[in-house]
Amino acid sequence: MTVYLDNSATTRPCDAAVEAMNQSMREEFYNPSALYTPAMHAERAMENARKTMAAAVGCSPQNVIFTSGGTESDNLAIIGHMQTLHQEGELLYTAAEHAAVKNACKEAERRFSCKAIEIPLTKSGSVDLESFRALLSPKTALICVMQVCNETGVIMPLDEICSLRDQLAPQAAIHVDGVQGFLREPFSFKRYPVQSYAVSGHKIHGPKGVGALCWQNGFRFKAQIVGGGQQGDLRSGTENTVGIAGLKAAIEAYPPDSAKKMLELKKLLVHLLTQSLPETQIVGLPESDPQSAGHILSVAFPPVRAETLLHALEADGIYVGTGSACSSKKGKHSSVLTAMKQPVDIMDGAIRISLCPNNTEEEMRYTAERLTVQVELLRKFMRR
Amino acid sequence: MTVYLDNSATTRPCDAAVEAMNQSMREEFYNPSALYTPAMHAERAMENARKTMAAAVGCSPQNVIFTSGGTESDNLAIIGHMQTLHQEGELLYTAAEHAAVKNACKEAERRFSCKAIEIPLTKSGSVDLESFRALLSPKTALICVMQVCNETGVIMPLDEICSLRDQLAPQAAIHVDGVQGFLREPFSFKRYPVQSYAVSGHKIHGPKGVGALCWQNGFRFKAQIVGGGQQGDLRSGTENTVGIAGLKAAIEAYPPDSAKKMLELKKLLVHLLTQSLPETQIVGLPESDPQSAGHILSVAFPPVRAETLLHALEADGIYVGTGSACSSKKGKHSSVLTAMKQPVDIMDGAIRISLCPNNTEEEMRYTAERLTVQVELLRKFMRR
Repeated sequence: MTVYLDNSATTRPCDAAVEAMNQSMREEFYNPSALYTPAMHAERAMENARKTMAAAVGCSPQNVIFTSGGTESDNLAIIGHMQTLHQEGELLYTAAEHAAVKNACKEAERRFSCKAIEIPLTKSGSVDLESFRALLSPKTALICVMQVCNETGVIMPLDEICSLRDQLAPQAAIHVDGVQGFLREPFSFKRYPVQSYAVSGHKIHGPKGVGALCWQNGFRFKAQIVGGGQQGDLRSGTENTVGIAGLKAAIEAYPPDSAKKMLELKKLLVHLLTQSLPETQIVGLPESDPQSAGHILSVAFPPVRAETLLHALEADGIYVGTGSACSSKKGKHSSVLTAMKQPVDIMDGAIRISLCPNNTEEEMRYTAERLTVQVELLRKFMRR
Repeated sequence: MTVYLDNSATTRPCDAAVEAMNQSMREEFYNPSALYTPAMHAERAMENARKTMAAAVGCSPQNVIFTSGGTESDNLAIIGHMQTLHQEGELLYTAAEHAAVKNACKEAERRFSCKAIEIPLTKSGSVDLESFRALLSPKTALICVMQVCNETGVIMPLDEICSLRDQLAPQAAIHVDGVQGFLREPFSFKRYPVQSYAVSGHKIHGPKGVGALCWQNGFRFKAQIVGGGQQGDLRSGTENTVGIAGLKAAIEAYPPDSAKKMLELKKLLVHLLTQSLPETQIVGLPESDPQSAGHILSVAFPPVRAETLLHALEADGIYVGTGSACSSKKGKHSSVLTAMKQPVDIMDGAIRISLCPNNTEEEMRYTAERLTVQVELLRKFMRR
């Protein structure tokens, strides 16, 4: 049995996306900037994808640009927005942010006369709202917060963040990194008064190499890739119509009830694990907490080390992650778990199990069974 | 009969590229940064593609990074290199450069304390070497020159440019925009002492949304998209393994004798056109000139206007371009033809016929025949 549980690293492209990309490559390969009819069809297909993307987040299609992925979208929103301000100011980002956000904030600090400041986390991995409140001021220019933490699955308190911003720093924009949240947890510009939202295609069974930046009317940013003036001069380069077609198909194919389904699977898995391995340590919020996303479970079985467990599970056909995929090869402690003041044995032991809507109850039962066997075995070795 | 002659705008992805992308999506969709074996296979496939790319331009695989396309590659080389210099300096670019290069130079001027200076063209669209010589000085930091002009098909005099740089500005790096040259005209870092080379996938029957920047040992540049530190921290973001697989397949499938074949087809087309329409005006160098690339023909039949002719040919199933695809919708005179001091009726009338290795003699004969009919018809209308 093969069980893929590293969906926050990347997902298998769905059939609809693969078919849409093939159709685009075979029949609509034209350059959307060209003047003849087939090229205009390619352009129209892309504009339809823009409408699909806009509808999925509740903004206008004019406020969507396609990028090469989540990292570019985050960079564009953060660096591009700070570039418009021409002023000293403060740029706040939570300590849970992905490196695409953290490093974009630090890059903005280097390039402009602004200051990048990290917002501390609670022990369970949410934003420490008291610290956040204390950091807000008339100097705050931009606040960066992820929708769902890629390492812990904690859903960030957007309501509270927006409300504190409105009270104490109404001039500040809020950028939401939606890479780990889009479609898996509800989000809409109509629901949250934030200014921009970054999306990645390959986390939702769409293709790699495509993403989007969506924004609320009034949000301003400068292009970071310049050239032929495509996409309203906000992102130059021949549009990746193939990837965009795949993204559209993936959005349309994403099951609407997936959040509930994945949460139930996660609860089942936690239930089975805590029964068979009572020392199971959940990192972040418990699965019963409404701020805990259904598709990500960070869990440790100290003193078993994450990488050892990952490879043991691989032998059983189960693929899980350790921290974020990007940092997994660097052999460093996760900066997120460090900010959560987790003990060293948890930081060394946390594996990330991340679901997609196609996972099944049977897979959860198999995973719990094999995890139990492997953890018990590895503990025996460690006791020797 | 359908004849696609806008291959410099984009090409139809070849079967090998489409199959490689499908295989990558179905079987190797894993995140190359993850730690388990299938992810390591995905990483290995990407590293093999890097070797293929490196071998195609004669550099080391360590000196190749994959980007989202030619525009990003040009931006990264130019802005990224100027960012390392921390000095005043001059950035030279030919007036024939694509907007991806021109605008990156202007952006570098805005961001750093350097000066962007345009190198004039000759009337036939090559670099005016006397003017270039006069611009070179110890202040020159970077020289940007395209391998083949996307509008005229003129092959730029890289030998002379390198030699003048070596004599008068040995400290300056040379960046070559290879988007319209790669595989269609010979290029190798072993042949030309230039520092960097930008490639686009979709111009060589590969996918849109992928490209590469390749460089010579010693060339330095800073990342323009920051985050998880992928690709040696020079270009963050989960790698587009699917697009990269398509690019590799397209490079391997590109016929090695294509330059000669396309030049013969271009010569045939020019021969047929000048026979049936003696007033045919070739823009740029004549097809017999060794600096004229085989895959691009810019031609005008004054007083017939380019856009009118484009749509007339479309009715016959023939797709051609006007200037570059990017600028075609802006209704402005081409800055390249302006720099070549072309008369207004040429600028209004120039269509671009761009070939790929799959075009045939039959297609050339059909195109010459329909072009003749349409030009004669349109001239009659204009005389009324």
